[in-house]
Amino acid sequence: MNASAPREAAARDTPRIVVINPNSTVAVTRGIDEAIAPLRFADGPRIDCVTLAEGPPGIETQQHADAVVGPLCELIGREDHAASAFVIACFSDPGLHAAREATARPVFGIAHSAFLHALSLGTRFGVIAILPASVRRLRRYVRQVGLHEHFAASIPIGVGVSDLHGEGVAAQMQRAGRELIDAHGADVLIMGCAGMARYREALEQGLGVAVVDPCQAGVARALAAVRLHETT
Amino acid sequence: MNASAPREAAARDTPRIVVINPNSTVAVTRGIDEAIAPLRFADGPRIDCVTLAEGPPGIETQQHADAVVGPLCELIGREDHAASAFVIACFSDPGLHAAREATARPVFGIAHSAFLHALSLGTRFGVIAILPASVRRLRRYVRQVGLHEHFAASIPIGVGVSDLHGEGVAAQMQRAGRELIDAHGADVLIMGCAGMARYREALEQGLGVAVVDPCQAGVARALAAVRLHETT
Amino acid sequence: MNASAPREAAARDTPRIVVINPNSTVAVTRGIDEAIAPLRFADGPRIDCVTLAEGPPGIETQQHADAVVGPLCELIGREDHAASAFVIACFSDPGLHAAREATARPVFGIAHSAFLHALSLGTRFGVIAILPASVRRLRRYVRQVGLHEHFAASIPIGVGVSDLHGEGVAAQMQRAGRELIDAHGADVLIMGCAGMARYREALEQGLGVAVVDPCQAGVARALAAVRLHETT
Amino acid sequence: MNASAPREAAARDTPRIVVINPNSTVAVTRGIDEAIAPLRFADGPRIDCVTLAEGPPGIETQQHADAVVGPLCELIGREDHAASAFVIACFSDPGLHAAREATARPVFGIAHSAFLHALSLGTRFGVIAILPASVRRLRRYVRQVGLHEHFAASIPIGVGVSDLHGEGVAAQMQRAGRELIDAHGADVLIMGCAGMARYREALEQGLGVAVVDPCQAGVARALAAVRLHETT
Amino acid sequence: MNASAPREAAARDTPRIVVINPNSTVAVTRGIDEAIAPLRFADGPRIDCVTLAEGPPGIETQQHADAVVGPLCELIGREDHAASAFVIACFSDPGLHAAREATARPVFGIAHSAFLHALSLGTRFGVIAILPASVRRLRRYVRQVGLHEHFAASIPIGVGVSDLHGEGVAAQMQRAGRELIDAHGADVLIMGCAGMARYREALEQGLGVAVVDPCQAGVARALAAVRLHETT
Amino acid sequence: MNASAPREAAARDTPRIVVINPNSTVAVTRGIDEAIAPLRFADGPRIDCVTLAEGPPGIETQQHADAVVGPLCELIGREDHAASAFVIACFSDPGLHAAREATARPVFGIAHSAFLHALSLGTRFGVIAILPASVRRLRRYVRQVGLHEHFAASIPIGVGVSDLHGEGVAAQMQRAGRELIDAHGADVLIMGCAGMARYREALEQGLGVAVVDPCQAGVARALAAVRLHETT
Repeated sequence: MNASAPREAAARDTPRIVVINPNSTVAVTRGIDEAIAPLRFADGPRIDCVTLAEGPPGIETQQHADAVVGPLCELIGREDHAASAFVIACFSDPGLHAAREATARPVFGIAHSAFLHALSLGTRFGVIAILPASVRRLRRYVRQVGLHEHFAASIPIGVGVSDLHGEGVAAQMQRAGRELIDAHGADVLIMGCAGMARYREALEQGLGVAVVDPCQAGVARALAAVRLHETT
Repeated sequence: MNASAPREAAARDTPRIVVINPNSTVAVTRGIDEAIAPLRFADGPRIDCVTLAEGPPGIETQQHADAVVGPLCELIGREDHAASAFVIACFSDPGLHAAREATARPVFGIAHSAFLHALSLGTRFGVIAILPASVRRLRRYVRQVGLHEHFAASIPIGVGVSDLHGEGVAAQMQRAGRELIDAHGADVLIMGCAGMARYREALEQGLGVAVVDPCQAGVARALAAVRLHETT
Repeated sequence: MNASAPREAAARDTPRIVVINPNSTVAVTRGIDEAIAPLRFADGPRIDCVTLAEGPPGIETQQHADAVVGPLCELIGREDHAASAFVIACFSDPGLHAAREATARPVFGIAHSAFLHALSLGTRFGVIAILPASVRRLRRYVRQVGLHEHFAASIPIGVGVSDLHGEGVAAQMQRAGRELIDAHGADVLIMGCAGMARYREALEQGLGVAVVDPCQAGVARALAAVRLHETT
Repeated sequence: MNASAPREAAARDTPRIVVINPNSTVAVTRGIDEAIAPLRFADGPRIDCVTLAEGPPGIETQQHADAVVGPLCELIGREDHAASAFVIACFSDPGLHAAREATARPVFGIAHSAFLHALSLGTRFGVIAILPASVRRLRRYVRQVGLHEHFAASIPIGVGVSDLHGEGVAAQMQRAGRELIDAHGADVLIMGCAGMARYREALEQGLGVAVVDPCQAGVARALAAVRLHETT
Repeated sequence: MNASAPREAAARDTPRIVVINPNSTVAVTRGIDEAIAPLRFADGPRIDCVTLAEGPPGIETQQHADAVVGPLCELIGREDHAASAFVIACFSDPGLHAAREATARPVFGIAHSAFLHALSLGTRFGVIAILPASVRRLRRYVRQVGLHEHFAASIPIGVGVSDLHGEGVAAQMQRAGRELIDAHGADVLIMGCAGMARYREALEQGLGVAVVDPCQAGVARALAAVRLHETT
Repeated sequence: MNASAPREAAARDTPRIVVINPNSTVAVTRGIDEAIAPLRFADGPRIDCVTLAEGPPGIETQQHADAVVGPLCELIGREDHAASAFVIACFSDPGLHAAREATARPVFGIAHSAFLHALSLGTRFGVIAILPASVRRLRRYVRQVGLHEHFAASIPIGVGVSDLHGEGVAAQMQRAGRELIDAHGADVLIMGCAGMARYREALEQGLGVAVVDPCQAGVARALAAVRLHETT
């Protein structure tokens, strides 16, 4: 909690959640926008999904994740006067703690939000990841937030962001999910990438466990923060 | 996830969250109702707070907690046709897993919801409890949900449910919160009883850390579950 | 430790351990009675195994486990004047903490007793369970008592209480035990149901690891408590 | 479990538990003998407490603990033909695993037995220790057996074995126990030395929590092992 | 281990460890240079301490730590042809994993190195920190590397980098160290800032426990890596 | 840290690390000597590898490990006047804490040193062991030093010390390493025996992960201790 944050600051004329896609691929931002649509209410906060133009096409390495922190904080600075909360919509939660220093508005990362969200649906979460390079990065992050005892594993499907709409992707996600359940003991799954909500329902039906879209989890958390006047 | 739950079941004509106060004290139910008001939206789910008539005036022992499970499941059975989600609004989360067996609708307990909610605001939560008898019960529960490494301590203020509006209560909560922070390393606090949201703002200002009302956390979680068609 | 328990209370004229089978299947009670026979001594406490008439035929769900707590505590109340200790002889340890509130006599559950007993024979225990429905309940309980780091897994054999004497049961238990050892790293096993002591010796010989009957573990613990004047 | 141990080996003509005091102070052996008296039954195993003549007057260092392993294993070898179980009655559990290699009879250490025994009476054990030198050794051991999450602390009273009958000892134990409860959160205590059972009742009454004598815990465990034909 | 790193790459004509001070304060670099002098050998690797000109005067926030990653990786790129190993000499280990992506040479951070180094001298390390802002950042990092169970606490002395040579600093470090030992159970201490080796001896003598200078730990680790041809 | 150790004691006229092979097989000592050669510097400490004549040919049981403690401490006593540090070069770290009582010089065990060394190269270490009997002993030790969360598993190749130069050994080590990586999630390996450094390079190339020779790790740690005037 940022002590200098005036409580009233969060209660703006127009409550607004800014969801930042830190990669520069606009199609991903659109996918996020669709994913979080169920969390819009007639009299609820406006929810805007924006693209970080300075980001790489996809955040695939630790260098990518670290490189977006500066531009991300600058974007937050520019939006701060018209925002009630921020969501960092990349499954690496890049710059989460730097962003919390940069604004008095609450900031949530979609990965951490998804972990916590999943733990009210199951006891041990598995992550369907995109690329193998993310496996160790994710393991470090799960440990950093102290949830490694609840973490089954992450299994990459070996598909990059630009190919996420390809034909075989759904089947690969089913296979990865099945392995997370059978071989690693997961009883709830998280899709480890932004904007994949379209696969959620089919995965749940095929696998018989709850599946979490991290953007939905992050925005749901921000929604509560805005209505409850929370700070981070 | 209850495999037999038809997905469409959650999407009723009139989405509705039923918040059950498992003690029979109507004033507590009213406090809960006020607490969760910010989570009502014009086009959002209806949120009804109901009192379990068969419950004791307050749930103060393990025997109390176990005794309400039967009537609670019966109430859920009666409301099931007109509910999209249930929230058990007692900080012992009595009957949570029995209730999940009893209905295909998602069910959340306010204590577990509050733990997870708090962990996106801080890293180590302390609980301001009501009565000393709850200390060991809470410790067992925190371990059961696997979050003991994030648990600072719980400190009771020694006041029963019926006296929660007395003059000294606010000051006692400040003292308990201060001790949780200074002596136990808490960086986020949870009020360990239903319907105390009125104290939240003053505690946050006095103590400089985020304070979680568990009913708000539980209903926020149920709200997301209803909109995202989740099952537990 | 119940502070109000007069120390002399445990030292009755006729020391007596009451072992409660909380399901209503008398054959299970008889199996328990045979299992604990080696713990009877000429000048030791009398050990009586009783059936909870109000219980279901088998405790197979969380609802079952919660529903017996009331009748169980009432039975304890009726027996209290003539008991030195109680053992709850169901592998869910239903009502353990409620029972400890209900009497000044020491109360032990057979599951927790078996976990602790096993840990002096090995370092990582696996549980041969009866029905799949118990797997998640057991995992919650192992975490609640803080022994999850010592828990390999539980594997159900898919046989209900009434079929435990069938021909194939012994072989299924061997298979489950073998998998607990080979795939989950168990070096000591627990039979996750009351009254199966007859299978213990064959399992030990077939599998080469120690096998714990939980009723024996629970009664052994109660025996020590009676002789050492302990309270819980 | 020693695979080569013939099951019938434990069932001797005269069941007999050999309790070994690995220090050479006969007064300690006598204290152990008195402590475990309640665990003798008319038709139960004979329980003999013996002194390791080659041991030091007290085991106060890691070098002492390591030095007794050889003679201890030799003593076990000499007694093996007439023993059903062994108890190593020193709170360092010296040579426990070497002893288990040296005999097919079950062997228990009083410290590990006391930890497990205590965990059925409380959730977090504190140890009233004798000398400061034992503090780090004990911490290593608690971690080795994987129970550090249940360990509050050990507090030495600064009194050597030969002075354990002095006038101030009872008061010092009360003070150490009080600090373990109030400052370290212990809800059950263990007396960290052999043969102090005489202080148990007064400590329990003064402190209001259960107090475990480790020799009683170790012998109770061995008693069960003998009757249940267990091996380690 | 970077799979594409040719083993011979580490064995250059002139083995050389590059120690990077990621803040721009040259006095700190000089302090590091003095600290690591004992690790220079006549026929050992050359050890060069360099200053990251683009860094802030001191790394005091998460934003500072994240902002240096880019320039740090560029510096590594420039030095790569003439380096056998890199050490990042800031107690936040900024950019450690990005740097490991950026070079085939082994890279070590001084904080993680110090944690591991300390654990061969004691069992529970405390950190004497500089500024309060680092406390939560350090706690996250200790968890990320999975050593939180060995972490006592960090206590800041409230002095910035530029004032580290002031008169009262030595006494403040003694006080912080004393509190880490007495109130938090540390049995080994780490100085949580680069280039403070000059205080080490006095702290060890005053406090009676081992004290680790993190730059010494990091360079010692890199020295071994160079001689043993290790990659990270 | 041994409080009575005069700081200057470690800075002898001729700094010298004594590496003790506690088994009596001279060929092992020679293998150790070769392994640690890269850690000798022209102006660095002399490093002498010595054989404990009283040791067994190989330390294969807990009894072996305990039996060498006495002679080991005597050898340390004899060498103490001419030593700056000691390394116990057996993967059971026999007598480590007794040795630390016996001398004011720093003492390191190769197993613990290897664990810590490995954790700066990877996050989860697996151990290629020699004989099956060591598996449980190693698991106890990893827990004792509190690193079980970082421990994948140990897999024995079933070859005794005297056969370690046989033809098939390299292939067996590759197989064990592969299983540790694929089935147990190890991302760094340790060779669980002294003097096997000759296999290191081939294992790293074949398996694609870092491989640690424990003697190299132990001596590297001792080297730093000597240069930095550390005590244990």
